[in-house]
Amino acid sequence: MHHISKEMQTCIDQCLACYQSCLGMAMTHCLEAGGKHTEPAHFRLMMACAEMCRTSAHFMLLHSPHHKHTCAECAEICEECAKDCERVGDMDDCVQACRACAESCRRMAA
Amino acid sequence: MHHISKEMQTCIDQCLACYQSCLGMAMTHCLEAGGKHTEPAHFRLMMACAEMCRTSAHFMLLHSPHHKHTCAECAEICEECAKDCERVGDMDDCVQACRACAESCRRMAA
Amino acid sequence: MHHISKEMQTCIDQCLACYQSCLGMAMTHCLEAGGKHTEPAHFRLMMACAEMCRTSAHFMLLHSPHHKHTCAECAEICEECAKDCERVGDMDDCVQACRACAESCRRMAA
Amino acid sequence: MHHISKEMQTCIDQCLACYQSCLGMAMTHCLEAGGKHTEPAHFRLMMACAEMCRTSAHFMLLHSPHHKHTCAECAEICEECAKDCERVGDMDDCVQACRACAESCRRMAA
Repeated sequence: MHHISKEMQTCIDQCLACYQSCLGMAMTHCLEAGGKHTEPAHFRLMMACAEMCRTSAHFMLLHSPHHKHTCAECAEICEECAKDCERVGDMDDCVQACRACAESCRRMAA
Repeated sequence: MHHISKEMQTCIDQCLACYQSCLGMAMTHCLEAGGKHTEPAHFRLMMACAEMCRTSAHFMLLHSPHHKHTCAECAEICEECAKDCERVGDMDDCVQACRACAESCRRMAA
Repeated sequence: MHHISKEMQTCIDQCLACYQSCLGMAMTHCLEAGGKHTEPAHFRLMMACAEMCRTSAHFMLLHSPHHKHTCAECAEICEECAKDCERVGDMDDCVQACRACAESCRRMAA
Repeated sequence: MHHISKEMQTCIDQCLACYQSCLGMAMTHCLEAGGKHTEPAHFRLMMACAEMCRTSAHFMLLHSPHHKHTCAECAEICEECAKDCERVGDMDDCVQACRACAESCRRMAA
Protein backbone atom coordinates (compact mmCIF):
# COMPACT_ATOMS: atom_id res chain seq x y z
CA MET A 1 0.00 0.00 0.00
CA HIS A 2 0.98 3.60 -0.19
CA HIS A 3 1.94 4.40 3.40
CA ILE A 4 -0.73 6.87 4.42
CA SER A 5 -1.38 7.24 8.14
CA LYS A 6 -4.91 6.69 9.39
CA GLU A 7 -5.18 10.35 10.34
CA MET A 8 -4.07 11.52 6.89
CA GLN A 9 -6.49 9.13 5.18
CA THR A 10 -9.31 10.58 7.27
CA CYS A 11 -8.29 14.07 6.19
CA ILE A 12 -8.19 13.06 2.51
CA ASP A 13 -11.67 11.55 2.93
CA GLN A 14 -13.02 14.71 4.57
CA CYS A 15 -11.46 16.92 1.89
CA LEU A 16 -13.01 14.87 -0.91
CA ALA A 17 -16.39 14.77 0.89
CA CYS A 18 -16.36 18.55 1.31
CA TYR A 19 -15.28 19.04 -2.33
CA GLN A 20 -18.25 16.91 -3.40
CA SER A 21 -20.67 18.74 -1.14
CA CYS A 22 -19.59 22.27 -2.18
CA LEU A 23 -19.38 21.58 -5.91
CA GLY A 24 -22.50 19.40 -5.99
CA MET A 25 -24.61 21.90 -4.00
CA ALA A 26 -23.36 24.88 -6.03
CA MET A 27 -24.26 23.19 -9.32
CA THR A 28 -27.75 22.09 -8.22
CA HIS A 29 -29.25 23.69 -5.12
CA CYS A 30 -27.58 27.11 -5.52
CA LEU A 31 -28.09 27.52 -9.28
CA GLU A 32 -31.69 26.29 -9.01
CA ALA A 33 -32.63 28.40 -5.99
CA GLY A 34 -30.93 31.60 -7.19
CA GLY A 35 -31.26 34.77 -5.07
CA LYS A 36 -28.82 34.74 -2.16
CA HIS A 37 -27.47 31.41 -3.42
CA THR A 38 -25.98 32.95 -6.56
CA GLU A 39 -24.68 36.16 -4.99
CA PRO A 40 -21.19 36.44 -6.52
CA ALA A 41 -19.33 36.48 -3.19
CA HIS A 42 -21.14 33.40 -1.84
CA PHE A 43 -20.94 31.41 -5.04
CA ARG A 44 -17.24 32.15 -5.56
CA LEU A 45 -16.57 31.06 -1.98
CA MET A 46 -18.34 27.74 -2.64
CA MET A 47 -16.18 27.23 -5.74
CA ALA A 48 -12.99 28.25 -3.93
CA CYS A 49 -13.79 25.84 -1.10
CA ALA A 50 -14.37 22.97 -3.55
CA GLU A 51 -11.07 23.70 -5.33
CA MET A 52 -9.02 24.07 -2.14
CA CYS A 53 -10.38 20.78 -0.75
CA ARG A 54 -9.51 19.04 -4.03
CA THR A 55 -6.01 20.51 -3.94
CA SER A 56 -5.37 19.63 -0.29
CA ALA A 57 -6.35 16.01 -0.93
CA HIS A 58 -4.00 16.04 -3.93
CA PHE A 59 -1.06 17.34 -1.86
CA MET A 60 -1.53 14.59 0.72
CA LEU A 61 -1.61 11.99 -2.06
CA LEU A 62 1.55 13.53 -3.56
CA HIS A 63 3.23 13.01 -0.17
CA SER A 64 4.40 16.58 -0.37
CA PRO A 65 5.49 18.12 2.95
CA HIS A 66 3.69 21.27 1.74
CA HIS A 67 0.38 19.53 2.54
CA LYS A 68 0.63 21.22 5.93
CA HIS A 69 0.27 24.62 4.25
CA THR A 70 -2.50 23.58 1.86
CA CYS A 71 -4.36 21.99 4.80
CA ALA A 72 -3.98 25.20 6.84
CA GLU A 73 -5.43 27.25 4.00
CA CYS A 74 -8.14 24.66 3.43
CA ALA A 75 -9.20 24.85 7.08
CA GLU A 76 -9.50 28.63 6.81
CA ILE A 77 -11.61 28.58 3.63
CA CYS A 78 -13.84 25.75 4.92
CA GLU A 79 -14.53 27.67 8.14
CA GLU A 80 -15.45 30.77 6.16
CA CYS A 81 -17.62 28.74 3.77
CA ALA A 82 -19.44 27.04 6.67
CA LYS A 83 -20.30 30.44 8.15
CA ASP A 84 -21.49 31.84 4.83
CA CYS A 85 -23.64 28.77 4.16
CA GLU A 86 -25.25 29.23 7.61
CA ARG A 87 -25.98 32.88 6.79
CA VAL A 88 -27.57 31.95 3.44
CA GLY A 89 -29.51 29.13 5.08
CA ASP A 90 -30.87 25.76 3.95
CA MET A 91 -27.40 24.30 3.35
CA ASP A 92 -26.93 22.09 6.39
CA ASP A 93 -25.12 19.25 4.59
CA CYS A 94 -22.57 21.69 3.24
CA VAL A 95 -22.07 23.37 6.62
CA GLN A 96 -21.38 20.00 8.24
CA ALA A 97 -18.99 18.86 5.50
CA CYS A 98 -17.05 22.16 5.75
CA ARG A 99 -16.83 22.00 9.57
CA ALA A 100 -15.64 18.37 9.54
CA CYS A 101 -13.06 19.12 6.87
CA ALA A 102 -11.82 22.25 8.65
CA GLU A 103 -11.29 20.32 11.89
CA SER A 104 -9.44 17.50 10.15
CA CYS A 105 -7.26 19.92 8.15
CA ARG A 106 -6.34 21.91 11.26
CA ARG A 107 -5.07 18.69 12.81
CA MET A 108 -2.96 17.86 9.72
CA ALA A 109 -1.56 21.40 9.59
CA ALA A 110 -0.45 21.36 13.23
CA MET B 1 -29.44 17.30 -0.97
CA HIS B 2 -28.00 17.55 -4.43
CA HIS B 3 -30.03 14.98 -6.36
CA ILE B 4 -27.45 12.37 -7.21
CA SER B 5 -28.75 8.88 -7.94
CA LYS B 6 -27.37 6.01 -5.88
CA GLU B 7 -25.68 4.59 -8.97
CA MET B 8 -24.01 7.89 -9.84
CA GLN B 9 -22.81 8.33 -6.26
CA THR B 10 -21.25 4.87 -6.41
CA CYS B 11 -19.47 5.85 -9.62
CA ILE B 12 -18.17 9.11 -8.10
CA ASP B 13 -16.90 7.10 -5.11
CA GLN B 14 -15.16 4.55 -7.37
CA CYS B 15 -13.59 7.32 -9.48
CA LEU B 16 -12.23 9.09 -6.41
CA ALA B 17 -11.00 5.79 -4.94
CA CYS B 18 -9.18 4.95 -8.18
CA TYR B 19 -7.75 8.48 -8.40
CA GLN B 20 -6.36 8.05 -4.88
CA SER B 21 -4.95 4.63 -5.62
CA CYS B 22 -3.21 5.59 -8.88
CA LEU B 23 -1.80 8.89 -7.66
CA GLY B 24 -0.86 7.57 -4.22
CA MET B 25 0.84 4.45 -5.59
CA ALA B 26 2.69 6.39 -8.31
CA MET B 27 4.07 8.86 -5.79
CA THR B 28 5.22 6.23 -3.27
CA HIS B 29 5.45 2.63 -4.44
CA CYS B 30 6.42 3.40 -8.07
CA LEU B 31 8.93 6.18 -7.38
CA GLU B 32 10.51 4.18 -4.55
CA ALA B 33 10.70 0.87 -6.42
CA GLY B 34 11.93 2.36 -9.71
CA GLY B 35 12.77 0.01 -12.60
CA LYS B 36 9.62 -1.10 -14.43
CA HIS B 37 7.58 1.13 -12.11
CA THR B 38 9.06 4.32 -13.53
CA GLU B 39 9.12 3.28 -17.18
CA PRO B 40 7.74 6.39 -18.95
CA ALA B 41 4.79 4.63 -20.60
CA HIS B 42 3.65 2.95 -17.39
CA PHE B 43 4.11 6.00 -15.19
CA ARG B 44 2.32 8.31 -17.63
CA LEU B 45 -0.58 5.86 -17.78
CA MET B 46 -0.84 5.91 -13.98
CA MET B 47 -0.95 9.71 -14.06
CA ALA B 48 -3.44 9.79 -16.94
CA CYS B 49 -5.69 7.33 -15.08
CA ALA B 50 -5.59 9.45 -11.91
CA GLU B 51 -6.46 12.61 -13.87
CA MET B 52 -9.27 11.01 -15.87
CA CYS B 53 -10.87 9.58 -12.73
CA ARG B 54 -10.67 12.99 -11.07
CA THR B 55 -12.26 14.60 -14.13
CA SER B 56 -15.06 12.05 -14.45
CA ALA B 57 -16.03 12.54 -10.82
CA HIS B 58 -16.01 16.30 -11.46
CA PHE B 59 -18.32 15.99 -14.48
CA MET B 60 -20.84 13.98 -12.47
CA LEU B 61 -20.74 16.59 -9.70
CA LEU B 62 -21.23 19.34 -12.32
CA HIS B 63 -24.37 17.50 -13.45
CA SER B 64 -23.12 17.80 -17.00
CA PRO B 65 -24.73 15.43 -19.50
CA HIS B 66 -21.21 15.02 -20.93
CA HIS B 67 -20.37 12.82 -17.93
CA LYS B 68 -21.38 9.91 -20.16
CA HIS B 69 -18.44 10.64 -22.44
CA THR B 70 -15.92 11.27 -19.66
CA CYS B 71 -17.08 8.04 -17.97
CA ALA B 72 -16.66 6.10 -21.24
CA GLU B 73 -13.11 7.42 -21.62
CA CYS B 74 -12.42 6.78 -17.94
CA ALA B 75 -13.51 3.14 -18.29
CA GLU B 76 -11.12 2.69 -21.21
CA ILE B 77 -8.11 4.21 -19.44
CA CYS B 78 -8.83 2.33 -16.19
CA GLU B 79 -9.01 -0.98 -18.06
CA GLU B 80 -5.68 -0.25 -19.76
CA CYS B 81 -4.11 0.84 -16.47
CA ALA B 82 -5.34 -2.33 -14.70
CA LYS B 83 -3.68 -4.48 -17.38
CA ASP B 84 -0.43 -2.56 -17.24
CA CYS B 85 -0.32 -2.74 -13.44
CA GLU B 86 -0.80 -6.52 -13.66
CA ARG B 87 2.09 -6.73 -16.15
CA VAL B 88 4.38 -4.69 -13.89
CA GLY B 89 3.27 -6.70 -10.85
CA ASP B 90 2.95 -6.05 -7.14
CA MET B 91 0.19 -3.48 -7.61
CA ASP B 92 -2.91 -5.45 -6.62
CA ASP B 93 -4.70 -2.59 -4.86
CA CYS B 94 -4.36 -0.44 -7.94
CA VAL B 95 -5.55 -3.20 -10.27
CA GLN B 96 -8.67 -3.71 -8.15
CA ALA B 97 -9.45 0.01 -7.91
CA CYS B 98 -9.07 0.39 -11.69
CA ARG B 99 -11.29 -2.63 -12.44
CA ALA B 100 -14.03 -1.48 -10.06
CA CYS B 101 -13.93 2.03 -11.48
CA ALA B 102 -14.00 0.80 -15.09
CA GLU B 103 -17.06 -1.34 -14.40
CA SER B 104 -18.93 1.48 -12.67
CA CYS B 105 -18.00 3.98 -15.40
CA ARG B 106 -19.15 1.62 -18.16
CA ARG B 107 -22.54 1.46 -16.45
CA MET B 108 -22.78 5.28 -16.26
CA ALA B 109 -21.73 5.65 -19.90
CA ALA B 110 -24.39 3.23 -21.16
CA MET C 1 13.00 20.60 -23.60
CA HIS C 2 9.94 18.47 -23.35
CA HIS C 3 9.37 17.47 -26.96
CA ILE C 4 6.03 19.05 -27.73
CA SER C 5 5.22 19.66 -31.40
CA LYS C 6 4.31 23.16 -32.47
CA GLU C 7 0.77 22.04 -33.23
CA MET C 8 0.34 20.43 -29.84
CA GLN C 9 1.70 23.51 -28.09
CA THR C 10 -0.84 25.64 -29.95
CA CYS C 11 -3.61 23.31 -28.79
CA ILE C 12 -2.42 23.47 -25.17
CA ASP C 13 -2.39 27.27 -25.44
CA GLN C 14 -5.91 27.37 -26.89
CA CYS C 15 -7.20 24.98 -24.22
CA LEU C 16 -5.74 27.08 -21.42
CA ALA C 17 -7.05 30.29 -23.03
CA CYS C 18 -10.55 28.82 -23.28
CA TYR C 19 -10.36 27.50 -19.72
CA GLN C 20 -9.48 31.02 -18.55
CA SER C 21 -12.24 32.62 -20.59
CA CYS C 22 -15.02 30.24 -19.48
CA LEU C 23 -14.07 30.15 -15.80
CA GLY C 24 -13.27 33.88 -15.64
CA MET C 25 -16.49 34.92 -17.39
CA ALA C 26 -18.65 32.54 -15.32
CA MET C 27 -17.25 33.90 -12.06
CA THR C 28 -17.63 37.58 -12.99
CA HIS C 29 -19.86 38.45 -15.92
CA CYS C 30 -22.34 35.58 -15.49
CA LEU C 31 -22.70 35.75 -11.70
CA GLU C 32 -22.97 39.55 -11.80
CA ALA C 33 -25.45 39.72 -14.69
CA GLY C 34 -27.69 36.86 -13.45
CA GLY C 35 -30.85 36.04 -15.43
CA LYS C 36 -30.05 33.91 -18.46
CA HIS C 37 -26.39 33.91 -17.42
CA THR C 38 -27.05 31.82 -14.31
CA GLU C 39 -29.59 29.44 -15.83
CA PRO C 40 -28.44 26.05 -14.52
CA ALA C 41 -27.94 24.45 -17.95
CA HIS C 42 -25.90 27.37 -19.29
CA PHE C 43 -23.79 27.82 -16.19
CA ARG C 44 -23.03 24.11 -15.87
CA LEU C 45 -21.96 24.05 -19.51
CA MET C 46 -19.55 26.94 -18.88
CA MET C 47 -18.07 25.03 -15.94
CA ALA C 48 -17.90 21.77 -17.91
CA CYS C 49 -16.14 23.55 -20.76
CA ALA C 50 -13.58 25.09 -18.40
CA GLU C 51 -12.88 21.71 -16.79
CA MET C 52 -12.62 19.80 -20.07
CA CYS C 53 -10.17 22.37 -21.50
CA ARG C 54 -8.07 22.12 -18.36
CA THR C 55 -8.08 18.34 -18.60
CA SER C 56 -7.22 18.23 -22.30
CA ALA C 57 -4.22 20.50 -21.76
CA HIS C 58 -3.19 18.20 -18.89
CA PHE C 59 -3.38 15.08 -21.08
CA MET C 60 -1.16 16.67 -23.73
CA LEU C 61 1.36 17.65 -21.03
CA LEU C 62 1.24 14.08 -19.67
CA HIS C 63 2.18 12.86 -23.18
CA SER C 64 -0.67 10.39 -22.91
CA PRO C 65 -1.86 8.92 -26.22
CA HIS C 66 -5.38 9.32 -24.79
CA HIS C 67 -5.09 13.06 -25.43
CA LYS C 68 -6.76 12.32 -28.78
CA HIS C 69 -9.92 11.27 -26.95
CA THR C 70 -9.88 14.13 -24.47
CA CYS C 71 -9.31 16.58 -27.35
CA ALA C 72 -12.25 15.07 -29.29
CA GLU C 73 -14.53 15.49 -26.27
CA CYS C 74 -13.15 18.98 -25.64
CA ALA C 75 -13.94 20.03 -29.23
CA GLU C 76 -17.52 18.82 -28.78
CA ILE C 77 -18.09 20.66 -25.49
CA CYS C 78 -16.42 23.86 -26.76
CA GLU C 79 -18.64 23.89 -29.85
CA GLU C 80 -21.73 23.45 -27.69
CA CYS C 81 -20.56 26.14 -25.27
CA ALA C 82 -19.88 28.59 -28.13
CA LYS C 83 -23.43 28.12 -29.42
CA ASP C 84 -24.96 28.55 -25.99
CA CYS C 85 -22.92 31.70 -25.30
CA GLU C 86 -24.17 33.13 -28.62
CA ARG C 87 -27.76 32.37 -27.61
CA VAL C 88 -27.32 34.05 -24.21
CA GLY C 89 -25.56 36.99 -25.85
CA ASP C 90 -22.92 39.51 -24.76
CA MET C 91 -20.21 36.86 -24.45
CA ASP C 92 -18.16 37.39 -27.58
CA ASP C 93 -14.75 36.74 -26.01
CA CYS C 94 -15.95 33.41 -24.72
CA VAL C 95 -17.48 32.43 -28.06
CA GLN C 96 -14.21 33.16 -29.84
CA ALA C 97 -12.09 31.28 -27.30
CA CYS C 98 -14.40 28.25 -27.53
CA ARG C 99 -14.37 28.24 -31.34
CA ALA C 100 -10.58 28.55 -31.55
CA CYS C 101 -10.13 25.77 -28.99
CA ALA C 102 -12.64 23.49 -30.75
CA GLU C 103 -10.83 23.87 -34.06
CA SER C 104 -7.42 23.20 -32.56
CA CYS C 105 -8.70 20.19 -30.59
CA ARG C 106 -10.37 18.68 -33.65
CA ARG C 107 -6.99 18.82 -35.41
CA MET C 108 -5.26 17.06 -32.48
CA ALA C 109 -7.98 14.42 -32.30
CA ALA C 110 -7.73 13.56 -35.99
CA MET D 1 -14.31 41.22 -20.21
CA HIS D 2 -13.78 39.69 -16.84
CA HIS D 3 -12.08 42.49 -14.94
CA ILE D 4 -8.63 41.10 -14.36
CA SER D 5 -5.86 43.62 -13.71
CA LYS D 6 -2.81 43.52 -15.95
CA GLU D 7 -0.67 42.42 -13.03
CA MET D 8 -3.02 39.58 -12.13
CA GLN D 9 -3.18 38.43 -15.77
CA THR D 10 0.62 38.32 -15.84
CA CYS D 11 0.60 36.18 -12.70
CA ILE D 12 -2.00 33.79 -14.17
CA ASP D 13 0.18 33.51 -17.30
CA GLN D 14 3.31 32.79 -15.26
CA CYS D 15 1.49 30.21 -13.13
CA LEU D 16 0.20 28.38 -16.20
CA ALA D 17 3.63 28.57 -17.87
CA CYS D 18 5.31 27.10 -14.78
CA TYR D 19 2.60 24.41 -14.51
CA GLN D 20 3.32 23.43 -18.11
CA SER D 21 7.06 23.42 -17.60
CA CYS D 22 7.04 21.33 -14.40
CA LEU D 23 4.46 18.80 -15.56
CA GLY D 24 5.85 18.58 -19.11
CA MET D 25 9.47 18.16 -17.95
CA ALA D 26 8.54 15.61 -15.28
CA MET D 27 6.64 13.46 -17.78
CA THR D 28 9.37 13.52 -20.45
CA HIS D 29 12.84 14.63 -19.42
CA CYS D 30 12.71 13.34 -15.83
CA LEU D 31 11.07 9.97 -16.55
CA GLU D 32 13.36 9.38 -19.54
CA ALA D 33 16.58 10.43 -17.81
CA GLY D 34 15.87 8.59 -14.54
CA GLY D 35 18.54 8.61 -11.81
CA LYS D 36 18.46 11.86 -9.84
CA HIS D 37 15.48 12.97 -11.95
CA THR D 38 13.17 10.32 -10.50
CA GLU D 39 14.37 10.54 -6.89
CA PRO D 40 11.08 10.53 -4.95
CA ALA D 41 11.67 13.87 -3.20
CA HIS D 42 12.60 15.69 -6.41
CA PHE D 43 9.84 14.20 -8.50
CA ARG D 44 7.17 14.84 -5.88
CA LEU D 45 8.32 18.45 -5.66
CA MET D 46 7.95 18.84 -9.43
CA MET D 47 4.41 17.47 -9.21
CA ALA D 48 3.55 19.62 -6.20
CA CYS D 49 4.85 22.70 -8.01
CA ALA D 50 2.74 21.92 -11.09
CA GLU D 51 -0.38 21.42 -8.97
CA MET D 52 0.13 24.55 -6.87
CA CYS D 53 0.65 26.70 -9.98
CA ARG D 54 -2.53 25.26 -11.50
CA THR D 55 -4.45 25.97 -8.29
CA SER D 56 -3.14 29.52 -7.91
CA ALA D 57 -4.18 30.38 -11.46
CA HIS D 58 -7.60 28.88 -10.66
CA PHE D 59 -8.02 31.01 -7.53
CA MET D 60 -7.25 34.19 -9.47
CA LEU D 61 -9.80 33.19 -12.13
CA LEU D 62 -12.34 32.48 -9.38
CA HIS D 63 -11.80 36.05 -8.14
CA SER D 64 -11.40 34.64 -4.67
CA PRO D 65 -9.68 36.95 -2.16
CA HIS D 66 -7.88 33.81 -0.96
CA HIS D 67 -5.71 34.00 -4.07
CA LYS D 68 -3.26 35.96 -1.94
CA HIS D 69 -2.68 32.88 0.21
CA THR D 70 -2.47 30.44 -2.69
CA CYS D 71 -0.02 32.80 -4.43
CA ALA D 72 2.11 33.03 -1.27
CA GLU D 73 2.28 29.24 -1.04
CA CYS D 74 2.93 28.99 -4.78
CA ALA D 75 5.88 31.39 -4.52
CA GLU D 76 7.37 29.26 -1.75
CA ILE D 77 7.03 25.97 -3.64
CA CYS D 78 8.32 27.48 -6.90
CA GLU D 79 11.40 28.85 -5.15
CA GLU D 80 12.09 25.45 -3.62
CA CYS D 81 11.51 23.71 -6.96
CA ALA D 82 13.86 26.12 -8.76
CA LYS D 83 16.63 25.34 -6.27
CA ASP D 84 16.09 21.60 -6.52
CA CYS D 85 16.09 21.71 -10.33
CA GLU D 86 19.42 23.59 -10.19
CA ARG D 87 20.86 20.91 -7.89
CA VAL D 88 19.72 18.10 -10.20
CA GLY D 89 20.98 20.00 -13.24
CA ASP D 90 20.04 20.19 -16.90
CA MET D 91 16.65 21.74 -16.18
CA ASP D 92 17.20 25.38 -17.08
CA ASP D 93 13.78 26.01 -18.62
CA CYS D 94 12.10 24.75 -15.50
CA VAL D 95 14.32 26.83 -13.21
CA GLN D 96 13.48 29.97 -15.16
CA ALA D 97 9.74 29.28 -15.22
CA CYS D 98 9.75 28.62 -11.45
CA ARG D 99 11.71 31.80 -10.68
CA ALA D 100 9.47 33.99 -12.87
CA CYS D 101 6.34 32.49 -11.31
CA ALA D 102 7.67 32.89 -7.77
CA GLU D 103 8.42 36.56 -8.35
CA SER D 104 5.00 37.24 -9.86
CA CYS D 105 3.21 35.32 -7.08
CA ARG D 106 5.10 37.17 -4.37
CA ARG D 107 3.84 40.43 -5.86
CA MET D 108 0.23 39.20 -5.91
CA ALA D 109 0.50 37.93 -2.34
CA ALA D 110 1.79 41.24 -0.99
